Amino acid sequence: MSKNKEEFVKEITNIDEDFAQWYTDIVLKAELADYSATKGCIVIRPYGYELWERIQEYADQKFKETGVKNVSFPSLIPESLLQKEKDHVEGFAPEVAWVTNAGGQDLDERLCIRPTSETIISTMYSKWLTSWRDLPYLYNQWCNVLRWEKETRPFLRSREFLWQEGHTIHETAKEAKDRTKQMLEIYSDVIENLLAIPVIKGLKTESEKFAGAEETYTVETLTHDGRALQSGTSHYFGQNFTIPFDIKFQNRDGEQEYAYQTSWGISTRLIGGLIMAHGDNRGLKLPPRVAPIQVVIVPIAQHKEGVLEKANELFESLKTNFRVHLDDRDQYSTGYKFNDWEMRGVPARIELGPKDIENGKCVVVRRDTGEKIDVALTEIQNKLAEILEEIQKNMFQMCLDRMKEKTSVATNMDEFKANLEKDQGLIKSMWCGSAECEDKIHEETGAKSRCLPFVQEHLGDKCVYCGKPASKMVVWGRQY
Amino acid sequence: MSKNKEEFVKEITNIDEDFAQWYTDIVLKAELADYSATKGCIVIRPYGYELWERIQEYADQKFKETGVKNVSFPSLIPESLLQKEKDHVEGFAPEVAWVTNAGGQDLDERLCIRPTSETIISTMYSKWLTSWRDLPYLYNQWCNVLRWEKETRPFLRSREFLWQEGHTIHETAKEAKDRTKQMLEIYSDVIENLLAIPVIKGLKTESEKFAGAEETYTVETLTHDGRALQSGTSHYFGQNFTIPFDIKFQNRDGEQEYAYQTSWGISTRLIGGLIMAHGDNRGLKLPPRVAPIQVVIVPIAQHKEGVLEKANELFESLKTNFRVHLDDRDQYSTGYKFNDWEMRGVPARIELGPKDIENGKCVVVRRDTGEKIDVALTEIQNKLAEILEEIQKNMFQMCLDRMKEKTSVATNMDEFKANLEKDQGLIKSMWCGSAECEDKIHEETGAKSRCLPFVQEHLGDKCVYCGKPASKMVVWGRQY
Repeated sequence: MSKNKEEFVKEITNIDEDFAQWYTDIVLKAELADYSATKGCIVIRPYGYELWERIQEYADQKFKETGVKNVSFPSLIPESLLQKEKDHVEGFAPEVAWVTNAGGQDLDERLCIRPTSETIISTMYSKWLTSWRDLPYLYNQWCNVLRWEKETRPFLRSREFLWQEGHTIHETAKEAKDRTKQMLEIYSDVIENLLAIPVIKGLKTESEKFAGAEETYTVETLTHDGRALQSGTSHYFGQNFTIPFDIKFQNRDGEQEYAYQTSWGISTRLIGGLIMAHGDNRGLKLPPRVAPIQVVIVPIAQHKEGVLEKANELFESLKTNFRVHLDDRDQYSTGYKFNDWEMRGVPARIELGPKDIENGKCVVVRRDTGEKIDVALTEIQNKLAEILEEIQKNMFQMCLDRMKEKTSVATNMDEFKANLEKDQGLIKSMWCGSAECEDKIHEETGAKSRCLPFVQEHLGDKCVYCGKPASKMVVWGRQY
Repeated sequence: MSKNKEEFVKEITNIDEDFAQWYTDIVLKAELADYSATKGCIVIRPYGYELWERIQEYADQKFKETGVKNVSFPSLIPESLLQKEKDHVEGFAPEVAWVTNAGGQDLDERLCIRPTSETIISTMYSKWLTSWRDLPYLYNQWCNVLRWEKETRPFLRSREFLWQEGHTIHETAKEAKDRTKQMLEIYSDVIENLLAIPVIKGLKTESEKFAGAEETYTVETLTHDGRALQSGTSHYFGQNFTIPFDIKFQNRDGEQEYAYQTSWGISTRLIGGLIMAHGDNRGLKLPPRVAPIQVVIVPIAQHKEGVLEKANELFESLKTNFRVHLDDRDQYSTGYKFNDWEMRGVPARIELGPKDIENGKCVVVRRDTGEKIDVALTEIQNKLAEILEEIQKNMFQMCLDRMKEKTSVATNMDEFKANLEKDQGLIKSMWCGSAECEDKIHEETGAKSRCLPFVQEHLGDKCVYCGKPASKMVVWGRQY
């Protein structure tokens, strides 16, 4: 049953030849997800789901530290509710799934499966809210949503996906705006510190904002092949929903006032971003903080006396502080195991053979650099913790270096196109603010505006497309 | 805005006069849940959802300790899949909701929203499984399901509810059967040790088992008004699904064999059971281990100098070890606060006033007994932990006493009916094993068989209904 390295590696498409196929190979072979009997919907397998559990755990704690509480709203929304906010229904109605028959009877009113829950949540906020003393409502739900996409790709764009959607209402516009940005900072924290992927934070343009929002903030990341990925968004609604849904309260002056609203979400799309940011020709590469298995112990010559015993001892001593796995399968060769765990992205491997045991040491192999490090068995606890921390940092740095390398400046469209051709990455340029220029750029280059970054730079005074006066810097990129 | 005790208590229907209305009052007034704009579906509010989070956390850890891993399967199931197992489709098809149109187009094949996921999961098991070495698959998902019930009641019977569904496949029938019982033991642990409700464990009769199962095991609890509540079930399927879904593997002898399957679930119905088991005329009563707030500090005469300061100090010192809340609202009277937190079921209240502070003590008031306990502020940490532990135990004991009191033996139908009339509880009797007797008993008394308890007693040799020879003891009861 063993396979040699050549054979093994052949099974994964070369990352630089066909990135899309490489991605699919990884998703399937690392057993992160699989296609299901329901078209356009995936099954998230245990190894993939553990990534999501760790994202949930990390983000949920951060949310709760800011006072957010979890809730659960129905997944079905009556059609009349979806219709209440004009832009919202235009944005979402074309891609919803409709329940028309239930319990053996046709329904009087169709129910859509939530594509997002602003409308159903707003009806309840309207019912509950009376006084400024009740505010803010800081609610979130972890749930599934459905959007009937035409083209799908596991994790990145699935008809059904898992996410969290936070929905808050506030006494003042300022408080709501602050909350919008506060949650974007948490998303940035999750993506940078847990997933080791650098982000660009900024404001979406009018054309790219969420259906029904006043302002949409985004965290954008970059994939291995230089595409942009919208990885989390946070929306300020103003009173766009609170007026049609009649969410009002008695304010401190005793007057009726409509509340100010936000919503914000991250989804299992982050898993797609994780794969695409870090993976290489050996397969998946996981940052230690999110990896289901942080370190795998592979015994060398495990049939020899004392090897499995010592490996077990090591496993027992590490399992309190690390997510560790001992691969003592006897039907696979050591070489197969090395390749298998590298493909699955385990950050560190410990090799332990008869000679190592004799010398009271083991060998730690880093997935990110391939470096082999001799470590005395008496020092493995501290040393392993250090190595994993270094891997986490190094993986972030590698992505940051790539982002810098793949980001360029354009002051006119010739430069814009040439850069995009060369780098397949992010282009910074000045923009006049007109949707027309945005559309034209997209038409001519395939790149869309990612955002107006919080960190603005002065790259001249003219719009990269029309040459008219421009004071805003936009980052552009082709997207997944 | 303050209300006196009389007024406050009036708002909740008397528990012994109209239990159903009392239940609804508690659900709404304690802000556990609310009715939504989608008929038959509820919103679970933060205070109710925290109960579910604690149940999830406790059960999920127990599952994982036995090797279970979490996954996510699509919520939509093609009609043809649902049809594959005859009993299963008969059981569930009448109450599913159908998606017939999505993305602006009518679908070629209808998709049902999962009422349970055996069918969609089985298709994947069939795809993945090849060898006995792959077994067992021990997968679970926490998700929402839909069953189009005609009559609904918050938590107990809602068209949509949250649950976990575990689905496992095994190499041998014995291993699968052992797993079925193992999971039932975990449910019993959750309900008895976390929720402080005693259970009866047993086997469902043929008529009451899950659609498609060989055997269904159940944990049954008893409500305040003496009704039985099916609180968790675990099913052994044998090969009922693995044959039609072609889930086979090469066994140790090199032959193809169909795997042996189980599934098991608990749901947000447990929250309904929790309310109905412990509540009283003052409202909800929560066991400390599951309570979102274990102790509330209510300052007495909080406008007096030093009181709020000392209360804050106490709050800060308790918050590491307890889920504690300080109620320093100035728009409510102390009496209102007492009633409010009692109604919300908080297990312990700490009163702290100027005199207490002078004497270096506080007063702890137990929600379960009303007992007031003077505790020196220097000893509050240990003493409070002890008191909460006692409350947890006492609440379990109170339910156990009631269960004993409301359980009786019947050897003939006159006794059966008289007992039921008197006790509104559980009846133990011998049963011949025929579905006809079971149906007749239900027709004549409204009571259904709850289960054949694991702990069997010999109560004679004749069936309580037909008088024919009987060797099995059944527990009967009217149900929610």
